Formats: sequence, structure tokens, C-alpha cells
Amino acid sequence: MVKGFDVLVSEVGPRDGLQSIKTILPLALKKAWVEAEAAAGVAEIEVGSFVPSALLPQLADTDELVRFARKIEGLTVAVLVPNAKGAEAAIAAGAHKITLPVSASEAHSLRNVRRTQEEMIAEAENIAALIRALPKAQRPHFEGGLSTAFGCTIEGAIPDGRLAALAQRLIEAGCDEVGLSDTSGYANPQQVRRLVRLIRSVVGTERLTGLHLHNTRGLGLANALAGLEEGITTLDGSLGGLGGCPFAPGASGNIVTEDLVFMLEAMGLSTGIDLPRLLKVRQDLARWLPGEPIFGFTGDAGLPLGFEPSLKTA
Amino acid sequence: MVKGFDVLVSEVGPRDGLQSIKTILPLALKKAWVEAEAAAGVAEIEVGSFVPSALLPQLADTDELVRFARKIEGLTVAVLVPNAKGAEAAIAAGAHKITLPVSASEAHSLRNVRRTQEEMIAEAENIAALIRALPKAQRPHFEGGLSTAFGCTIEGAIPDGRLAALAQRLIEAGCDEVGLSDTSGYANPQQVRRLVRLIRSVVGTERLTGLHLHNTRGLGLANALAGLEEGITTLDGSLGGLGGCPFAPGASGNIVTEDLVFMLEAMGLSTGIDLPRLLKVRQDLARWLPGEPIFGFTGDAGLPLGFEPSLKTA
Repeated sequence: MVKGFDVLVSEVGPRDGLQSIKTILPLALKKAWVEAEAAAGVAEIEVGSFVPSALLPQLADTDELVRFARKIEGLTVAVLVPNAKGAEAAIAAGAHKITLPVSASEAHSLRNVRRTQEEMIAEAENIAALIRALPKAQRPHFEGGLSTAFGCTIEGAIPDGRLAALAQRLIEAGCDEVGLSDTSGYANPQQVRRLVRLIRSVVGTERLTGLHLHNTRGLGLANALAGLEEGITTLDGSLGGLGGCPFAPGASGNIVTEDLVFMLEAMGLSTGIDLPRLLKVRQDLARWLPGEPIFGFTGDAGLPLGFEPSLKTA
Repeated sequence: MVKGFDVLVSEVGPRDGLQSIKTILPLALKKAWVEAEAAAGVAEIEVGSFVPSALLPQLADTDELVRFARKIEGLTVAVLVPNAKGAEAAIAAGAHKITLPVSASEAHSLRNVRRTQEEMIAEAENIAALIRALPKAQRPHFEGGLSTAFGCTIEGAIPDGRLAALAQRLIEAGCDEVGLSDTSGYANPQQVRRLVRLIRSVVGTERLTGLHLHNTRGLGLANALAGLEEGITTLDGSLGGLGGCPFAPGASGNIVTEDLVFMLEAMGLSTGIDLPRLLKVRQDLARWLPGEPIFGFTGDAGLPLGFEPSLKTA
């Protein structure tokens, strides 16, 4: 999914961020957010989730937002779906990328989507069949997102073998790739290396390119670095660190997009993102969500004197 | 300086933390802090700085605190000194380790200690002479701390050659080793690797073992990871992230000791520190410093379910 730069930073704030706060951001401001981040060079944005609006009223307008966002040139519009019904809606709206979260923890799976892992694998098969029925040019990219991959707040550690088996079954079910999600913020850099290697050895290198990391215990960017060093090329982040998982108690906070972009650009890894411009979107977001906590460091500290990002904006 | 564990975590909060906040912590509470952290297994603590009390009234009782701390068995008592006069006082009090900060930025040097780099090198020579005059068993370890090594808020980037030359001159002046300090919070992991390799190639591997990192832009633990991967064995941290450099505008916040210890222990690197016990000291510190911001994530999030630290407390 990397398009002419070293690392694809995928913004998940409009989905993972907004789903975990009480405020419902009006559709017009969601559009403004997505538009502004895309204009700053963010090439992939997870704009929402196709779940019943009674469960997540914050994301009830995902359909309209997808239809809006897919008109933005060059932007990959990603969504989360909990099942094949959601995938049908995502396909109808024109999403470019569909992620089905499948929890490595049975207890978390039941709490998060009220389905067993077996039921979720069956959903993956159904979604893959839906996608195969489409003309090739219209097929969205289909990811199986292995949530609680690094441990679960209900079950604790996840045995490596169980994670590997689940990854393999998702690929067999028809996912184009799997992703590893640190839903609980339990990951450490050594574990990131180990599990990236393990899962890649099972499904193939090209079928695990992305990590979804949280900063629950402050290790988010260290874990991202470990992933990069293992060859990971897609990293999720949430602008202002908005978000977390409302169903994993104590787990909060995606890694902060702007801090991640600063780290990457400072290391000489291009992201295609105009960081000063992204920092302005952060200010917009804080204004649009009064009373909601905004996290991160680079926004407050500013860029280093003489900092030269690698970016070349269009 | 590592004593039977993989990484030495050196607590600098009583010096770097307290010097940058307005509250003056009473001596009795400083003693309680140092005692509690040592009891939690922290093997090295920078307890203060021998500077004129008019400049830093927060640290005016450093002499008494050193005399108290050196009675704690197994604890390495470290102090900062701005000059040979301070070193004389540190030696008289019985400090085990003396760090002379020497800025890689001339502008920062003038602002921080009102001396040029040349004058600071002369101070290093004078301090080395003082130490050599002592019986071997009484000689403190003498470190030249290269502040603003990763960039300066006044001068911007520091040329690699200037940093390398300064490191070499400090070793020639008689320092036992040099350390790299990210005073401004400008460091990135790629730069940490590069500069650790560079300075070690000039002064020798055994003469650069430690990093003093800040979390100003959220990269503190990622930078620590890069240092570890280069073979660094000593990492400074500040409990609750207390502190920063009052003379480097915009630069604030040492890496958080408890988050660092969590990362290391989670990676299977032993620190000798009892993390649950350390988290209790964090709570004490917050109570002792009402109104002062306390940072970090692990303290709020708690330890992962089933987390097994490598420690074996005595």
C-alpha cells in the first residue's frame, strides 16, 4: 500500500478515536477532518465502522463519509466492519479497504463483537466471497485485523501458536493480509519483533505489512520502531492520540499520528506528509472537540530548530 | 556500572526533576524518595547538583542528601557539578559519581553554566586532577555529560565532528567516560544509533555506556530502544517524568523511569527493580509534590494481566 514514500501512516482517528469518546462529531466536521488530513498528505484514512448505529452512534454516518472521502484523489478510504453485513454496506459505499477485526482472545471477541473466533472466521469467508463476486477493479483490499494480538486485558497473554493459527486461517478464509493490533497496549518491542517474524513465517512477508499500536504504557513509538526494523511499512496512528478500545478496560490511546510522523521524518523515512500542516489539523481537531483530551508531544513542543522533513508535497 | 542485571536505570529525578519545578521539596522528603527508590532496587540515583544555592535553591541541600544517600548499601550516589569547586564539595560529601555537563552548543553552554566549552574542558582537567590526588579507593567515577548532543534550541543541529572532538577532549582531560544527553528533546532513533557509534569509534566502547534522554516529542523510549540495540547499558530516567532543563526553552521532561523499567522488564531485560514497588514510590512523589504535573503511562494504566517481571528482589 506504500505509494512512493517509505512508510504509510494510516490515520484511524475518525474511527478508533471517535468511537471511544462521548462527543458525536457532526458529519460536516468529519468531512473537514478527513479532507484536511488528506490535504496534508495522509494517504490512507480509516473513516468509520459499519456497525449498527445503536451500538456506536458516533459512527452512524460512516456510509456518507465513505462516499465523500472516496472522491478525494489519491486517498485510500478504509473502514472497519464487524461482519459480512457491514462489508456489504462498505462495498456499496465504495470503501477501498475493509478490515475485519478478529480477536486473538476468545473472551475479548465475545465482548467486542459478541461472536466466537470460529464465527468471525466464517464472517471472513463470507466477506471474501462477496469481494470475489465483484469485478477485479472494484474489489476492496481485505484485511483481517488480529486484535489483542499482544495480550488481552481479560485473558492475559495469547499463546504464539494460537495467534499463528488464527492468522493462517484468516488468510485461508480469503483475507489479502493480516494486521497485528495491540488493542490492550500490552506490546513491547521485543514481542513486536518476535510476533512479526512468527506471523510472517506462517502467512508470508507480503501478507503482514501493518501494525496498529496503542500508547497505553508509553511504548507505542518504541514498538513502532521495532516494527519498522522488522520491515513493517504501514503504521496506524490517531491524530491527537484520540481513541482506544471502549471494550478493553484500561486500554486507551492509539499512538499519536503527529509524533509518529515526526519520528519517521526525523529518521529520514519519508511519509509523504507535510508535518507543519498536519499539526494545524491537530489544532482544528482540538477546537472541534472541546473538552475531549488531546494527547501527544510534538504538537506542544513544536518542531526542532532547523528540522528538515523529507517530504515533498505535491 | 551494571551490577548483576542487564540495564542500569539511573534515577535523575531528585536532580533534573526537582531543579525544574518551583516547589522546594524538604530534605526529609528527598531522603524518603531516595530511600524508597533504592529499596525498590534502583541502583544509581543522581541526588542533586553542587551549584550555588542562589541559582538553584531547590538543590541547596545536596551536600546533606549525598551524605545521607551514601549510607544506603549498594546505592551509587551520583551528582552533577558545574565546575571544580562543585566537584570539591561533591568529593568531600562522598559522591560515588560526578558528572560535569559540557554543552555541545557554545550558546547553550554560555546560557547554562556561563562558561565557554574551552573553560568547561579546563574545569574537567581540574576535576580530574582533584580525583587523581585521592587514594584509589576513594576516587569517584567521573563523567563528562555532553548536553545538547542531539541538537540545541538556540543553535539547532550540532555538527557530528564538533561532538566527536568534544568527546575526545573530555576523555583526554581525564573523564572516565562521556555520556550523551538529549537536553532539547531533539533526538531520533536513527541519530541515537549514529552518534553512539560515532562517539564510541572515537573514545572507545567502554567510555560511552549511558544516555540521558528526554521525552519532549514523545520519542524518549524509542530513542532508548535504539540505544539499547547499540549496546548502551545505562539509561537515565525521572520518576513521574518530573523535570527537564530550565535553561533550554521548550525542552522539558526526562523519560519516565517507571515506563522505561516496564519496557525493559517486558522485553526480558533485567533492571534489578521491583516495578510494583517503584509504582508505589511514584504515588508517594505525587503526594509530596501537590500541584506539580506527574507524567507517564504505566502508572495510570497499571501492569498487564499476567505480567512477569524478570526481577528477583533481594
